[in-house]
Amino acid sequence: MAKGLTPRSEDFSAWYNEVVQQAELADHAPVRGCMVIRPYGYALWENVRSALDQRFRDTGHENAYFPLFIPQSFLAKEAEHVEGFSPELAVVTIGGGKELEEPLIVRPTSETVIGHMYAKWIQSYRDLPVLINQWANVVRWELRPRLFLRTTEFLWQEGHTAHATREEAEEEARRMLEVYADFAENEAAVPVIKGRKSEGEKFPGAIISYTIEAMMGDGRALQSATSHDLGQNFARAFDITYQDAEGGVQHCWTTSWGMSTRFIGAIVMVHGDDNGLIMPPRLAPCQVVIVPIWRNDDEKALVMAAASNARDVLGEFRVKLDDRDQLTPGFKFNHWELKGVPLRVEIGPRDVRNQQVVLARRDRPGREGKTDVPLGGLRDGVGKMLGAIQGALFERAVAFREEHTTQPESYDELRAAVARGFALAWWCDSADCEARVKADTTATVRCIPQAQPEGQGTCAICGRAATGKAVFARGY
Amino acid sequence: MAKGLTPRSEDFSAWYNEVVQQAELADHAPVRGCMVIRPYGYALWENVRSALDQRFRDTGHENAYFPLFIPQSFLAKEAEHVEGFSPELAVVTIGGGKELEEPLIVRPTSETVIGHMYAKWIQSYRDLPVLINQWANVVRWELRPRLFLRTTEFLWQEGHTAHATREEAEEEARRMLEVYADFAENEAAVPVIKGRKSEGEKFPGAIISYTIEAMMGDGRALQSATSHDLGQNFARAFDITYQDAEGGVQHCWTTSWGMSTRFIGAIVMVHGDDNGLIMPPRLAPCQVVIVPIWRNDDEKALVMAAASNARDVLGEFRVKLDDRDQLTPGFKFNHWELKGVPLRVEIGPRDVRNQQVVLARRDRPGREGKTDVPLGGLRDGVGKMLGAIQGALFERAVAFREEHTTQPESYDELRAAVARGFALAWWCDSADCEARVKADTTATVRCIPQAQPEGQGTCAICGRAATGKAVFARGY
Repeated sequence: MAKGLTPRSEDFSAWYNEVVQQAELADHAPVRGCMVIRPYGYALWENVRSALDQRFRDTGHENAYFPLFIPQSFLAKEAEHVEGFSPELAVVTIGGGKELEEPLIVRPTSETVIGHMYAKWIQSYRDLPVLINQWANVVRWELRPRLFLRTTEFLWQEGHTAHATREEAEEEARRMLEVYADFAENEAAVPVIKGRKSEGEKFPGAIISYTIEAMMGDGRALQSATSHDLGQNFARAFDITYQDAEGGVQHCWTTSWGMSTRFIGAIVMVHGDDNGLIMPPRLAPCQVVIVPIWRNDDEKALVMAAASNARDVLGEFRVKLDDRDQLTPGFKFNHWELKGVPLRVEIGPRDVRNQQVVLARRDRPGREGKTDVPLGGLRDGVGKMLGAIQGALFERAVAFREEHTTQPESYDELRAAVARGFALAWWCDSADCEARVKADTTATVRCIPQAQPEGQGTCAICGRAATGKAVFARGY
Repeated sequence: MAKGLTPRSEDFSAWYNEVVQQAELADHAPVRGCMVIRPYGYALWENVRSALDQRFRDTGHENAYFPLFIPQSFLAKEAEHVEGFSPELAVVTIGGGKELEEPLIVRPTSETVIGHMYAKWIQSYRDLPVLINQWANVVRWELRPRLFLRTTEFLWQEGHTAHATREEAEEEARRMLEVYADFAENEAAVPVIKGRKSEGEKFPGAIISYTIEAMMGDGRALQSATSHDLGQNFARAFDITYQDAEGGVQHCWTTSWGMSTRFIGAIVMVHGDDNGLIMPPRLAPCQVVIVPIWRNDDEKALVMAAASNARDVLGEFRVKLDDRDQLTPGFKFNHWELKGVPLRVEIGPRDVRNQQVVLARRDRPGREGKTDVPLGGLRDGVGKMLGAIQGALFERAVAFREEHTTQPESYDELRAAVARGFALAWWCDSADCEARVKADTTATVRCIPQAQPEGQGTCAICGRAATGKAVFARGY
């Protein structure tokens, strides 16, 4: 807390790096590109994980664990896949003191090794669908690392499913996109646009990649999760077949879908402010912090008794009583604001005498966000206030996105739009126009949204007939 | 279920390999030495993890995540540590398409990289103790792999703590040994002997290694968890220091402690029988399976209604209704016995008419383990029965260990004892005697138990004055 934060509006990137480290979410590891997720950041990830995991179970998936090491030859079996991942690989060449005959890849993703196992496990249509998820670490070599956003090693989940028909696989890929969108909006208060990736941006080996894209506090996009319809590409490469009810042999249809610790970066960049993080209440490692305020030992005894009582009353929430002796209330306020605890309960001697406390909302700093609540209504009051904060964060993020989204009619307007946020523009679906935007602005097609406007338009880049609207933006 | 299991008494090792694969706990990965933990095995691991994790939180620990890759130079900083782990390392030499300047070690354990971070984070005595755990994968090259027991990659947790004094660190290391023993005995029904490792068997870099040792169904020992007092060895190697209350600079005292997926192997080998696994109810992925029995459609309607109702009544347990149409009850019985589900509920037409069900205990095959229970008492009956099974498994394992533990007076007796189980023998604490036993029998000192007998004895190997009794056994 010694150092002040760079204001968010002044240098968003510096603000991000500082807040992640000062709030003790993460730190740089000794190996360049790798990170340490500190207890506070890991607690947030655990909450993300458990909210997602419950959704995966509710949609019929089971967890399993596949190996970290993949034979180098496996990657080459799917042509686009190996081309896409080759530049990012970490390769083990020595094991047990000896040079290995075949080098091992540290998994960048697990379609190949899981495909190999599915080919072994799946015999009959009765074995389908196979609906498995794994929580794991993966490695993709990163030349310009940033904590959470781009790290050589990151944590994620990867779902891998196999189905008897194209329709079922397609339905699964879309279902999981909905699961991710529901999680992002209702747990993390991060509004997302659901859509599909362009041909140029899709996952290496997929036939369709679905994505949810969120706008960060600087107007840039962050791909928050993806869900891929892999068609029969991996089933053919790894010979994942089943015997159908008539005795014929068919290739399976597979999907994969993932969300990673990258999403922690989204939570930081969507909600945070100049004072630090703002945690969405449903995922906050600490939802409520109680700060007792006293000037002398008599007051302390009075206030601490009330504060302990408040902590007990709030037992259903993730609550912390900051009873540290040597620190001032002001220091504690700053400390927990930096950490983004959504709600602070202040209790001073006068509050005790008046049988009340002060609730201070993290999302509305200053007097405006403070409410007096009678002690008898503390539990209900906190519950309602956390719900209100969750809703307000989401609404604020939606409003920000709307303010920073433009529907350009011309290429000049598109260029101006991507400089400050999202451009929702008619596009002819050609790689040439996509490449031109990228070369001129660094913006890419983030997604072709599911929700398309009525009517027809002409490509904002080349003027030819458009196939639909796409979101162009600079991305993380 | 196509293949029959090799009887446990006939070939314990073959039985183990078969049951692990046929019950779908795990499978071999394409990379030699690595494994795939299948959904059923992973569900067991998740239950292990959550029971341990709660105990770690209750004793004040937080979770975090440290990186997979460790600079090669780090390992060399602690002399015993590098010597101990060098033969087992997997080394990344290529990253992002380029030869790395400094090769990276895939973590075999994380004392070094965590020590590096602690040195950065810990400044003052106010920062102590640091009590962190991580759930992670680790890699130790394995030349004679076996599923769960010895795999090149395995999952585990590793706790790493830093303290201001030697006494606190020592207390922590002992506390975590108690936590492991409590977990093993009360959750997994695996009785353990608490003790410390001999000098020759301790963790490379520790001053004392504590261990819990369990006897498997073939009389061999399995080290089930270890807890290390690292003294100031790693604090000196990584310069983990703090400023004390008087302003002086001190090195910290650190500990580390871990339990791994290896323990799944212990659960299999302690409880299983000729029909397959027997899951301890508190950790069982499925605690109760309901098998409906019918011969025609009328009976089916009657029985299925009762079975669905029973499933709802048993909602507080991990319950499964096996309503598969195409399989016989006998097939289902075998299937769930192989998987070790502790309790089976059988419901046939006569049971429905009599308003009762049959409970069949997995730990007592045949008529002896069957009880009729009135439908009205199903919930209570199942709860009590699961408790009884949990207790009976533990007692049976204790009795087996006692039957297979000998207190040899002579070297001949010791040699005979380790051929069939544990030898609890007076020992002079010398490495020579330890080495002699190992050379003659392959047995090692598993631990020097905390609980020592009164009185004095002479070393069963050399006849000199003993320092105490030790457990000698062949190990996994």
